[in-house]
Amino acid sequence: MSLIANTPTPPYYAVIFTSERHEGDHGYAAMAERMLALAAQQSGFLGVESARSDVGVTVSYWADLESIKRWKANAEHLEAQRLGKERWYSAFKTRIAKVERDY
Amino acid sequence: MSLIANTPTPPYYAVIFTSERHEGDHGYAAMAERMLALAAQQSGFLGVESARSDVGVTVSYWADLESIKRWKANAEHLEAQRLGKERWYSAFKTRIAKVERDY
Repeated sequence: MSLIANTPTPPYYAVIFTSERHEGDHGYAAMAERMLALAAQQSGFLGVESARSDVGVTVSYWADLESIKRWKANAEHLEAQRLGKERWYSAFKTRIAKVERDY
Repeated sequence: MSLIANTPTPPYYAVIFTSERHEGDHGYAAMAERMLALAAQQSGFLGVESARSDVGVTVSYWADLESIKRWKANAEHLEAQRLGKERWYSAFKTRIAKVERDY
């Protein structure tokens, strides 16, 4: 199976989440895996691509802004966001972008 | 220095390039480094974030579509794109997206 998301014809939306982590796992890996599985169950979810070297770059794809808003407000995801700020990430940035073209 | 790009207030553009590589370097690492340095010299370039695990995710940020078009047509970059298809990548996808919001 390809790790490149099989997204539909644009337009659709991308959430680009870039992060730098503190040293040590502190429950991060299990939560990251749980969040990928949970995101995939949400309505409007189109796929995700994720890699980590010195920095982590995770791009999730969504049908519309409403789906992104609902996922951001998901209770379990909110808890993960809270732990991320408090425990795992030394820095992070989220960008919401409309994919206009792909090839 | 943070590895998270210090981009301006939106709107601006993102090029999300996701790839899977064949085994072995075959000149890839040197070219990847050269392309990051060369991209950073282009007008309209705003920053880049890149990570590779099983998949590589590189997001470069640009002021406008015109800058992206010029970079895509850069002679040295065209040669890298050719070698990428021929030698380095088993699969890849490029997405052009307009960043509407960040936080």
